[in-house]
Amino acid sequence: MTESSDKTLNKVGTISDDITRPFINSKKEYVKGSRDDIRVAMRKIELTDTVTAKGKKVKNDPVYVYDTSGAFTDPDIKIDLSKGLAPLREKWIVERCDTEQLSEPTSAYCRKRNSDKGLNEIRFPDIKMPRRAIKGKNVTQLYYARQGIITPEMEYIAIRENCRLQDAEKSGYRYHQGNAFGANIPKEITPEFVRDEVAAGRAIIPGNINHPEVEPMIIGRNFLVKINANIGNSALSSSIAEEVEKMAWAIRWGGDTVMDLSTGNNIHETREWIIRNSPVPIGTVPMYQALEKVDGIAEDLTWEIFRDTLIEQSEQGVDYFTIHAGLRLHHVPMTATRTTGIVSRGGSIMAKWCLAHHKENFLYENFEEICEILKTYDVAFSLGDGLRPGSIADANDEAQMGELQTLGELTKLAWKHDCQVIIEGPGHVPMQLIKENMDKQLEYCHEAPFYTLGPLVTDIAPGYDHITSGIGAALIGWYGTAMLCYVTPKEHLGLPDKHDVRDGIVTYKIAAHAADLAKGHPAAQVRDNAMSKARFEFRWNDQFSLGLDPEKAMELHDKTLPDPDARVSHFCSMCGPKFCSMRISQDVNKKAIEMKTNKEAMEQKAQEFRDKGSEVYS
Amino acid sequence: MTESSDKTLNKVGTISDDITRPFINSKKEYVKGSRDDIRVAMRKIELTDTVTAKGKKVKNDPVYVYDTSGAFTDPDIKIDLSKGLAPLREKWIVERCDTEQLSEPTSAYCRKRNSDKGLNEIRFPDIKMPRRAIKGKNVTQLYYARQGIITPEMEYIAIRENCRLQDAEKSGYRYHQGNAFGANIPKEITPEFVRDEVAAGRAIIPGNINHPEVEPMIIGRNFLVKINANIGNSALSSSIAEEVEKMAWAIRWGGDTVMDLSTGNNIHETREWIIRNSPVPIGTVPMYQALEKVDGIAEDLTWEIFRDTLIEQSEQGVDYFTIHAGLRLHHVPMTATRTTGIVSRGGSIMAKWCLAHHKENFLYENFEEICEILKTYDVAFSLGDGLRPGSIADANDEAQMGELQTLGELTKLAWKHDCQVIIEGPGHVPMQLIKENMDKQLEYCHEAPFYTLGPLVTDIAPGYDHITSGIGAALIGWYGTAMLCYVTPKEHLGLPDKHDVRDGIVTYKIAAHAADLAKGHPAAQVRDNAMSKARFEFRWNDQFSLGLDPEKAMELHDKTLPDPDARVSHFCSMCGPKFCSMRISQDVNKKAIEMKTNKEAMEQKAQEFRDKGSEVYS
Repeated sequence: MTESSDKTLNKVGTISDDITRPFINSKKEYVKGSRDDIRVAMRKIELTDTVTAKGKKVKNDPVYVYDTSGAFTDPDIKIDLSKGLAPLREKWIVERCDTEQLSEPTSAYCRKRNSDKGLNEIRFPDIKMPRRAIKGKNVTQLYYARQGIITPEMEYIAIRENCRLQDAEKSGYRYHQGNAFGANIPKEITPEFVRDEVAAGRAIIPGNINHPEVEPMIIGRNFLVKINANIGNSALSSSIAEEVEKMAWAIRWGGDTVMDLSTGNNIHETREWIIRNSPVPIGTVPMYQALEKVDGIAEDLTWEIFRDTLIEQSEQGVDYFTIHAGLRLHHVPMTATRTTGIVSRGGSIMAKWCLAHHKENFLYENFEEICEILKTYDVAFSLGDGLRPGSIADANDEAQMGELQTLGELTKLAWKHDCQVIIEGPGHVPMQLIKENMDKQLEYCHEAPFYTLGPLVTDIAPGYDHITSGIGAALIGWYGTAMLCYVTPKEHLGLPDKHDVRDGIVTYKIAAHAADLAKGHPAAQVRDNAMSKARFEFRWNDQFSLGLDPEKAMELHDKTLPDPDARVSHFCSMCGPKFCSMRISQDVNKKAIEMKTNKEAMEQKAQEFRDKGSEVYS
Repeated sequence: MTESSDKTLNKVGTISDDITRPFINSKKEYVKGSRDDIRVAMRKIELTDTVTAKGKKVKNDPVYVYDTSGAFTDPDIKIDLSKGLAPLREKWIVERCDTEQLSEPTSAYCRKRNSDKGLNEIRFPDIKMPRRAIKGKNVTQLYYARQGIITPEMEYIAIRENCRLQDAEKSGYRYHQGNAFGANIPKEITPEFVRDEVAAGRAIIPGNINHPEVEPMIIGRNFLVKINANIGNSALSSSIAEEVEKMAWAIRWGGDTVMDLSTGNNIHETREWIIRNSPVPIGTVPMYQALEKVDGIAEDLTWEIFRDTLIEQSEQGVDYFTIHAGLRLHHVPMTATRTTGIVSRGGSIMAKWCLAHHKENFLYENFEEICEILKTYDVAFSLGDGLRPGSIADANDEAQMGELQTLGELTKLAWKHDCQVIIEGPGHVPMQLIKENMDKQLEYCHEAPFYTLGPLVTDIAPGYDHITSGIGAALIGWYGTAMLCYVTPKEHLGLPDKHDVRDGIVTYKIAAHAADLAKGHPAAQVRDNAMSKARFEFRWNDQFSLGLDPEKAMELHDKTLPDPDARVSHFCSMCGPKFCSMRISQDVNKKAIEMKTNKEAMEQKAQEFRDKGSEVYS
């Protein structure tokens, strides 16, 4: 849901330079796996040389960082949004021989939209027929993992997750032990480890067989912490072109997955454009579209409409669905005395339906049928927290915990079908209650990955909720949350624009990385070390390229010192040349090394002396 | 140190409207103490009425919040920067009969500056002669506290710290227990409690007898967490007028103290203007000015120059001094193998001096003489962490911990003189090492308040270091840090402008408030509750006024929905009217209350039934 000044349906096709231009001193590099078509994209950051006091140049190894931006930042690939991305996984999917291509979409709604000539103008030009599991087959990564099969996706992920490790091993830096609170991150991520984590349900690989464009990634607490960015139009704004741009913009800054939360017009068509151009998994809340189909009247929702929506979206290629099946009728009265009632959109819709009919939640009632659908395409469950707290006062209350227990029950059910599951979490939680939240989730939901929105650690800073929630996100990521859903500065106030999306994502990359460091992820500290070395040596361009937002760093630096020479100067405008502690410290450093060396030499002499019996004249 | 486009020495005198205009629906209110001249300023936020489903209006109590902005936001007081603020504490200081007014400043440098006619243009017009303790008298708040004296300052603080409590008591909200990690916050802050905490050294009241304009405040872990904002010119920028504006700007957004870190021209005159207009304590690093006096050559520093600088600044009214006395000669070699050496400016200067002369740090050597000076004016020590880590790799290392132990030793020495002490802390620390940092500080420094810069929990986000450090600040505030020194987005890159200062301060108010909530400060959650109630009831203007930055919240809200009606509408642009969970939830809420009530009624009936022996026909 992003703000737009232009509300027309633009023709989609081009993409702007601020999305595709590579970051400073960075280039795309592909690391090959065991087969030629496993080519894992990484961003290689070339560093400048260290210049020693005597003027000698010493090479600095490049740093490889995890890259979510896909083909958009590869200058060798021509981006044509109306063609979509190359279907990287297609061969892998086809060669498993457990799927069939349909001759037409299964969903009645989808067929209707596809044959509506009035939509020709805005329809993605080359819609492929969907693929589905052959009857009796299960095509989920969880199914394969449990069969002991290491898929190409799993191998891709093992390479991708290790991308920074090579540097860590040769560095001479002081590395810190983490506190992973029961997570268990190995020194090296192997394909077998990936398989094992997926098989245990502790991680998922979101990848619909109808989204072959996806670059495989994993969500689990024994891997790098991931972040999700929300996009989507609303009744009040935004065109298809803008939504596709938002997706590409979000992954440029580091979105690991993108949720399309559209509630406005042409949701179906918008989604097709997004999926065909997205190298990251796409999530949705099918309830939003189902509600559009009944003109926004929650009471009019039916299982049949919802079911058709699930199939419609599955066959387009959505990789995970938020399903609010855990909010049961008997939970609703628990919210009566809350400060902020029900703040989840999906949750409030379901609650309204339950009350209107005085019936059990139809998603709960039909849960196994949902499993049957999802496993046919390998769409992962993201079990929605319809009763998440919307205020500090409501944190960790009976309603929230009651629903969480139901989510645990549903997890078991989904796993029975080999469906992949993640669990959604809050919300608004003060710091001292975050750990309890995480621990309860692991206990109730049998270690299925946790996927939280923040949480916001205070309610009192509208306009800064990327920060109130970034604090909570860093903490809960450290405690074991696998994926963090971003919050932008506009939360509680309005629709985020481009600037807000970037702020939200970078804040969440910080939270995720801080959590990786705190957990002691073996590869995390490499980038911090490279940055700090560059900082101590006044290698300004390297400080920019190694940062999470090179362009912002450059812009802020150049604002006070626009002269190009300032990019190679041994100070910045903060203290000026005379007061630069780093500069003084470099002088001090040389002396300190001498002193230390002298001291060690002295101590060695003393030891020799003691070794010889401490006799002065021997 | 703030960026400036205009580098001339402006005439100071006026102040801009964006600093003085009161926040929406807010007014200054003064709460009286036991004597007429104890009038504690608070910001009273008037709330609009709740409108029930039946259209009935229900009053909402106003919320009182801690107010650091002083007279600047009181429309009844005419601000004239060239006159300075009213000397609130003057009577209290005078009536203690332990000070004398001097006929001329003690510092030779100060006398030289005051008689330099070339400086007439920029000099504060009405400089008062300094006040000093009568020989043999001690005028520190710690001294009074230990004598069992409750000063007016202590009573003022007790009222100020409780300012939100009144609301908490009558609210029907769910309040959370905190985890204060050994801190011990009482249900009510009494003047006696304030005295006791100061006497124990667990809190300080910074308030130089030459800064009677200060509105008393306290720094200690059993009180609200405070934040500091840095200002100050550098050789490259800024005028006096701008520095004064920056101070007023910083306290508008919530700075509890302000450090003037000027290193450029006319430091002495700039400081006079700032202090005369500041209702918050002012801190400095006297080393910076001392270094200016020897043209930036660290080796040329002498104890005599430093000593005169201490007296010069004490007699102007600086409330606390950062003194890097804990960095000893033998610590320097410990930094030799660091990734980022010494990153503290004061630390690197002292290290350079120590090495150049191969002598012990003269601040350490002359520490008791410094105590003698500081207690004469009640300037508090802020013992500097010259060896704080400047990178994740260097966190909690031997050098940092070695210096911290020395700071503990010096704390005891300062306390022997009844000098007030806080301890400065890092820096860059990954999350899992923050707790150890806090625990070691409490242990080594005998519970003297901790005052930390962040810490930054990762090195890799230049341009966003208010956030990387805000995460660490929230955590360490929760663990027990008493004051958090802000970091702006420009950290590591350049000089913050007005926009950066505001971002930095609001981020730190968030961190401090999140810590207050997590510690279970009895008054903290009141504001969150009021905000959340306003949110659930679509009282938009109340959401703005209750926020930490009402103006930013309004601006972001109005950006998407500029129509004035949108300020009273029951939705926002995020989801539009149909998808607004809060709106749906209000409908659900009514039903949920019915269901709950029915259930309770049913249960009551069942209980009655059981009470009657479970017999159907009785």
